[in-house]
Amino acid sequence: MVVELISVGTEILLGNIVNTNAAYLAEKCALLGCSLYHQTVVGDNEERMEDAIRQALDRSDIVILTGGLGPTKDDLTKEVTARVFGRELYLDEHSKERIEAYFGRIGSSRITENNWKQALVPEGAIVIDNHNGTAPGLIIEDPEKGKTAILIPGPPNEMKPMFEQDIASYLNKLQPEGIYSHMVKICGIGESRAETMVADLMDAQTNPTLAPYAKTGEVHFRVTAKAKSEEEAEELMKPMIEEMYRRFGDAVYTINEQETLEENLVALLKEKGMTLSTAESCTGGKLAGRLLNAAGASEVFNEGYITYANASKEKILGVKHETLEEFGAVSAQTAEEMARGAAKAAEADAALSVTGIAGPGGGTKEKPVGLVYIGCAVNGRVTTRECHFTGNREKNRDYAVVRALTLLREELLAAGQQQK
Amino acid sequence: MVVELISVGTEILLGNIVNTNAAYLAEKCALLGCSLYHQTVVGDNEERMEDAIRQALDRSDIVILTGGLGPTKDDLTKEVTARVFGRELYLDEHSKERIEAYFGRIGSSRITENNWKQALVPEGAIVIDNHNGTAPGLIIEDPEKGKTAILIPGPPNEMKPMFEQDIASYLNKLQPEGIYSHMVKICGIGESRAETMVADLMDAQTNPTLAPYAKTGEVHFRVTAKAKSEEEAEELMKPMIEEMYRRFGDAVYTINEQETLEENLVALLKEKGMTLSTAESCTGGKLAGRLLNAAGASEVFNEGYITYANASKEKILGVKHETLEEFGAVSAQTAEEMARGAAKAAEADAALSVTGIAGPGGGTKEKPVGLVYIGCAVNGRVTTRECHFTGNREKNRDYAVVRALTLLREELLAAGQQQK
Repeated sequence: MVVELISVGTEILLGNIVNTNAAYLAEKCALLGCSLYHQTVVGDNEERMEDAIRQALDRSDIVILTGGLGPTKDDLTKEVTARVFGRELYLDEHSKERIEAYFGRIGSSRITENNWKQALVPEGAIVIDNHNGTAPGLIIEDPEKGKTAILIPGPPNEMKPMFEQDIASYLNKLQPEGIYSHMVKICGIGESRAETMVADLMDAQTNPTLAPYAKTGEVHFRVTAKAKSEEEAEELMKPMIEEMYRRFGDAVYTINEQETLEENLVALLKEKGMTLSTAESCTGGKLAGRLLNAAGASEVFNEGYITYANASKEKILGVKHETLEEFGAVSAQTAEEMARGAAKAAEADAALSVTGIAGPGGGTKEKPVGLVYIGCAVNGRVTTRECHFTGNREKNRDYAVVRALTLLREELLAAGQQQK
Repeated sequence: MVVELISVGTEILLGNIVNTNAAYLAEKCALLGCSLYHQTVVGDNEERMEDAIRQALDRSDIVILTGGLGPTKDDLTKEVTARVFGRELYLDEHSKERIEAYFGRIGSSRITENNWKQALVPEGAIVIDNHNGTAPGLIIEDPEKGKTAILIPGPPNEMKPMFEQDIASYLNKLQPEGIYSHMVKICGIGESRAETMVADLMDAQTNPTLAPYAKTGEVHFRVTAKAKSEEEAEELMKPMIEEMYRRFGDAVYTINEQETLEENLVALLKEKGMTLSTAESCTGGKLAGRLLNAAGASEVFNEGYITYANASKEKILGVKHETLEEFGAVSAQTAEEMARGAAKAAEADAALSVTGIAGPGGGTKEKPVGLVYIGCAVNGRVTTRECHFTGNREKNRDYAVVRALTLLREELLAAGQQQK
């Protein structure tokens, strides 16, 4: 089954936003066993959009269009696709009610006239409810020609849930063999090194296959098997996954695609009955913000501190004035006292601290931009790490967050070992 | 001059990497005044690549191809493009020397036979030195047909410097008029409503044009003019921008594309000589994390608090036990006391607080998931807002952050009015 992607939107065409939707959908479709040979981006222009849709339908079985389903008159995807399929649009009462309910839910009475445009659907189309916005998804089938168009709203927070909840199962039903996979998620080992460590496995791959995915500060390997049943697929993947555990050991924190590093850590803390606090300087709340992405983090996290100023580091965390004078705010010593102080102030079993120079300013020859110290206190024992990042301000802060989470994982596992 | 982008590579096609190159090049080309109507992604397949190149040359003046210039036999971009232009490849001694020098520089003696493939260039092509890798860039012109192909290596750290140093000036020379733009950035007004408010301006647009861009919790409008000089362009854009200010008033926080909402707020605080603190429950550090994206935020921000637990709200912020008992942690009263308490604890002039139910759990009929209270203290005066968000945990937290920033802006501006 050949699937092709068309991303609609002048913002993508002019480079104002990066086309992450295409990457997401391509990856998901590939995992479902679909073949992908083309991706196209077109703007909100009727004629060019029509050409793109006709060409795509000509060479592929299924065309997935994202974007251009908004309420404005620039949004033309539905209208143009309906015309290509020779379908009229009608007002779908169900979609209209959902739009009313949506506006009611967000407490807005300002439904403008053009919002009703989103309740217009092509005759014979399958309407997919949008749980995160007002534009429904649409599947338009032409059984005679064996061609299908799938229309999904462009905002990623609407597109992704809709794909996962409805479109994926629709596509899966059309496939003879299922594709099943695990994501082996690794932290604390760099991308190049991790790939070198499994180069032989990647070379030898047939079924299952092994493919690396780089994420900020983490490396993920997808193990994918093609099989008639999930059980059979699991049997095929088992030896490969066991081999990954043998090679990477505790650096593998999960093989569950849905589980994030912060969720893994919150679960680990819960399991150990421990609480955590944070003391952040350069990351300025991003570390805690990421940890608390994990639903249910309230069981392990009571409070955290953003201590940007030196005086705040002293006042809230009890960092010694002499330490700041002698070693500076960006030092292993300060990171250590911050972690110890955060654990004490929050009466927590563990604490993470981050202090560094994110840039663009503030660097010196001795302490350049990208220098970050991370501290981790677990049951009174404090470890620190010196890191050198080479990105811009944003990237340096993101890397510091992941490095801190990785250090916490290592220390929690080491603490477990000591207790044994 | 119509420019079209073709990204070559199976990794992009299958979604293993996000196509950031296309966004980068599209934005740069649009700013150079080029028109962009199509972007295409194809894999390392000879036939499909040739089709894509021929089609692109058919409808555009210049085709920029990225990727597929590596040393392996999968890398076909140069070979296929040369064939389309009817050119033979020859060994370019200059490129060969540069490849040798490159390997010498990175201290590697492992020049494999296939590296020399990268020194093969099409007859008559302009060869662009690659200062960050081994594959040179290539410009192949067909003056008779008025068509040009520009080939650039795929790795962003090779592509971007090459574009900036050589390709941009090449394209600029071909352009009669430049393109200049401002981004009118608006907070506190929803996308649909904002677009309705300027529908007539969008309809009437020719030069300058007006186009909306939705961002989480903000709306941006790009005003773009085509002119022979920047001065002339500014003259053309001025009436449109003034009209936007008339309609949106203080909701316009900048017309500078580079300036973010957090940078604007940090600048506003600096201007007023005020400091800020934060007290976060459901956003758990994300609000401070975003504010401190702004370089130089240390001048206005000393410390902030993540008070997830009720006990922490009492202990750190002095929220009254009775308030939590009577109204609950998610209430306007608690948000108010959090903001007041944060300002006091941090000895700050202003403070923002956020308390809410981000989900997925924790909602009740009276207090559903998505209910968030925001508090803002400015010089002892506290305002609160009740918000109802309808996204998932992540989206609710992101929206809460933007709404808090927006409230701070409103209150800072209002405080300025009162003083007058």
